[in-house]
This record gives sequence, structure tokens and C-alpha cells, in this order.
Amino acid sequence: MDFERRLAEDRELVEHSLERYTRPHNGSCIQEDVFEAMRYSLLGGGKRLRAVLAMEFCHAFGKKRQDALPAACALEMVHAYSLIHDDLPCMDNDDLRRGKPTNHKVFGDALALLAGDGLLTLAFETLSGGEAQELLGASRCIELVRILSQAAGEYGMLGGQVADVQAGGGKMTREQHAEMVAMKTGALIRASVHCGCVAGDASAEETASALRYAEQIGTAFQITDDLLDVCGDPALMGKNTGSDARENKITFVTMLGFEQAKRQADLLFSQAQEEISALFGAESFLMDLTVWLAGRRQ
Amino acid sequence: MDFERRLAEDRELVEHSLERYTRPHNGSCIQEDVFEAMRYSLLGGGKRLRAVLAMEFCHAFGKKRQDALPAACALEMVHAYSLIHDDLPCMDNDDLRRGKPTNHKVFGDALALLAGDGLLTLAFETLSGGEAQELLGASRCIELVRILSQAAGEYGMLGGQVADVQAGGGKMTREQHAEMVAMKTGALIRASVHCGCVAGDASAEETASALRYAEQIGTAFQITDDLLDVCGDPALMGKNTGSDARENKITFVTMLGFEQAKRQADLLFSQAQEEISALFGAESFLMDLTVWLAGRRQ
Repeated sequence: MDFERRLAEDRELVEHSLERYTRPHNGSCIQEDVFEAMRYSLLGGGKRLRAVLAMEFCHAFGKKRQDALPAACALEMVHAYSLIHDDLPCMDNDDLRRGKPTNHKVFGDALALLAGDGLLTLAFETLSGGEAQELLGASRCIELVRILSQAAGEYGMLGGQVADVQAGGGKMTREQHAEMVAMKTGALIRASVHCGCVAGDASAEETASALRYAEQIGTAFQITDDLLDVCGDPALMGKNTGSDARENKITFVTMLGFEQAKRQADLLFSQAQEEISALFGAESFLMDLTVWLAGRRQ
Repeated sequence: MDFERRLAEDRELVEHSLERYTRPHNGSCIQEDVFEAMRYSLLGGGKRLRAVLAMEFCHAFGKKRQDALPAACALEMVHAYSLIHDDLPCMDNDDLRRGKPTNHKVFGDALALLAGDGLLTLAFETLSGGEAQELLGASRCIELVRILSQAAGEYGMLGGQVADVQAGGGKMTREQHAEMVAMKTGALIRASVHCGCVAGDASAEETASALRYAEQIGTAFQITDDLLDVCGDPALMGKNTGSDARENKITFVTMLGFEQAKRQADLLFSQAQEEISALFGAESFLMDLTVWLAGRRQ
């Protein structure tokens, strides 16, 4: 199967499951509105990079993609929750996300807050639910909860968000910025690969190699985001570019300069390809995915 | 050991563990401020009813109270998160809680939002961490994650909160109000008892009886809250009374009238005592706790 078709199939698998996980059990109910708000931000959009990494690492280690599906969905729920809360007026106060009005613009601040809380909670309901336990057993499920909660927590995504809020466009050393990015976006990408390793029963050595790959693409992915904000095509990206500069944001481009940042992303993507090649040989979906990420134009 | 002394000991156990779980690993760090905000709302206050129920049911079924300590802490974290988010300006917009300024009044809205998110996440880190797994094993830990996430989620506490926000002081039938309260406060009290049953290796039959008890005291506890808002002693309660009436809130008192509400609470507490007596005999800490709750004046 060619790369694009398989990627589309992965995305459809996760979309279908996310839709099912957020359907109210009993049709019309008193908490119906929060389901609508959760579904608004969770369904029908995004690259699903985190879900795809979890499913495809699981598959590359010899198991079915479906075995990683509960974890893939939980990762996307945590990602969606973080975007909803980040966009709130008391945080970044953003009106648009992926070309659509942000959650609180549509549902109001209270329901947006609760939709974020609900998605974070639902991630752990999903990892501990009957479906996940039947697929993976209790030991692997609790390991997934451990990985996801740590990646989302104070030493991961949330800690990075706090550092970002506290810096508030102010001073940050190159090291502090790199640490902040590694926590804010890197931790969840690392967790995606890690969940795929757990669901795919990878050995400790394989997992260590996969996690090096995850750290490389996590940083390279963020550098690419920063580069695209300077030189990307707004039509392709569904948002205005140049916002980082207008908001005086600290990015890899402001830290390193455009050329140096580009060289670092290239280096990290090529190291990531070596890691994947050593794990799974020269040809694999994950190799294609890495090349695709390196050539990303949106 | 007499009741009061044992209750104080339980509270000290949980306070000590909560302090440990929220101490930054590495002293001064970039996410230090969110730890401070989390600790502000989590430590040093509250009845710790949820933690005490988890530990004492575990003990009553023949295990050590300490076996339920990670679950007890996770329950208190989820409770504290819900209070921080409920108090935010976009929700109830409260300035005071237990006689202290609310979290966002001290730390600002952004950090309060993140502190709530952090506590919810930390609850699942705690249940899946090394300490919990060593005490209870993977199967019981994932069962605790399932119980807590479901109780906190759209069919539990969060769903009740949504129903409350959506009603916004408007119309609600007696059944809808009872359902809302059962979700908003009842679900987490039920989960506390349930966690104690899991940690204490209770049989299915024992668990069913314990959960009936939990539902009885959960409702009775909320009715008592509503009664105390009408007739409580502000000095004892650390807050002004009469706020429900001033805000036109729907309560058990407005739904049933004072006398009828009081009769219902008395009935539920006496049913709860029967349940405990059938489970553990006429004399037990849990019996004393139930009697104490029934006589609550604050």
C-alpha cells in the first residue's frame, strides 16, 4: 500500500474511534452540550501525528495497528484538551484554530473549560476501559496510563506550558527555550512513540532507539513549525504566517537565526531516518513518514 | 483508639503523602509556580472525607490503610482540581473558599487553570506510579484508574458540573436536581468507597453493599450542606450562610422544604448505619464516622 493511502487509512481508523468514544451513551442527556464541545475540537481535523506514531510503531514491532488504537485516541484527546485550554482568554486568547473559531468562541468559556477537562479525563477512561484491557491486558494498560500522565503532567506538556506562560514573551536562554519546547510539544510526541512500543511489545533496546527517534522528530517538528511561520504558505497552512514575529515570540528562528535553525532541523530529521533504518531497515512506512515530515510545507 | 484521634491520624497520613506528591523533584525549576498553586489548594485544609473513606474501607476489609493511600491522594487531587476550576471567573467566579482567597485570586487565572489541570493529571500519575503498583499490582491499579476517571468524567462529576452550569439558576425538576447532585458530588464519594473496596480486596457482594452505603451518605451529605447553608453557624463553617437563597440556587431545601429535606437526610443516614452494621458489626470506625457525619454542624 502506498504511503499516502496508508496514512489516510490510519487517520480514518482513529477518527472513527474518536467519534465512537465521544458519542453520548444515552442520546439526549443533561450533559449533552459538553459532548458537543468536546467533539467540536476533537473530530475532523489535525494531522493525527500522535495517533499515527502510536499505531505505526505498534505495527512495526509486529502487532496490529488496532492494538494501539485506544492509546492513539487517548493521545489525541490529551492533545485536543491542551489546545482548548491554551486558546482560552486567560491563556493565549486565540479566536481561530485551523481556520475555525476556537472552542470558547463557539461554546463560551465555561463549556470550553469543561470540554478540555472532559477530554483529559476521557483519555484515562479510554486507557482503562474494557476495550483497552481486552486488547492489551492490565499491565500494559497501566503502563500506558503512566506514560501518558507523566507526558501530560508537570514534568511534560503542562510544565512546558507553565514555563511558556511565565516567560510571557520575556527573556529566556537558548537552553531554557529548548527545555520548554521539549516539554510542551516533545513530551507528547515521545509518549506517542512510547505507547506504540508498549502496545507492540518492543524490547528495552528497541524502545530506547524508538525514543531517541521520537526526541529527534519532536524537536525537528517544532523547528519546522517555527520556520513555516516565517516562510510558509498561508493558503496551505490555514492560518496567517508571521504571527510569531508580530507577537515577539521566542522561537528556534529568533534563537538560532533562520539558516542555522533550518540546518538543525535537517540534521535531526536525517538522524531520525538513521534510527528508523537501524530499527526496521531502509524501507518502511515510518521511513516514509519521517521523509514526509522533513519535507512538510504546512 | 478513639474516633477523633483516628480521624486525625488518617488526615495526617494523607496530608503527608499529598505534600510529598506535590514537592518539585528538582527543587527550583521552570515549572515551580504551578507546584505552588497546586499545593495552595491541595494542602492544609478540608475534611478529607474522600481520602478517609478510601483508607477506612480498605482497612475494614482487612488490609492496611496505607494500601489505599495512593488512591486516597488521587481522590483528594481530583476534588481539589474541581474546586479550583469551579471557582474560576468563567464558572462560579468565587473569591473565597474555606476562608481563604481562591486559587485564581492569588495566582491569576492562567496559573489557576493550569494548577487544576495539573492536579487532575497528577491523580493518574499517582495511581499508575511505582508506589501504587508495588502496593497493589497492575490489575488493581488499572481498576482504580477506571473507577476514578469514570467518576470524574462526563457521566460523573464533570457531567454534574455541566448540568449545573447549563441550568444556571433556572428551572430544574426534582429528578434532574437529584441526578445532578448524584453526579456532581455523589460520584466522587462513591468512587472513594469503591477504591477502598478494591484496595481492600472486598468481594463483589461486599462491594455492592459498600456502594449502597456510599450513595446514601453522598446524598445525605449534600442535603446536610444545603440545610447548613440555611441554619448553620457561620463561625463554625468559616463562610457566610444564606448564600444559596441569595443566589436563587436550587437546593434540596428549595426542592423539598426544610423539614422534609431534614427527614430525608436522617432517613439516609440511618439506612447507611444499617448497611455498615451489616458489613462490619455494630461497632466500627465507619459506624462512628457515619454517626459523626449525621451530626455534622459545619
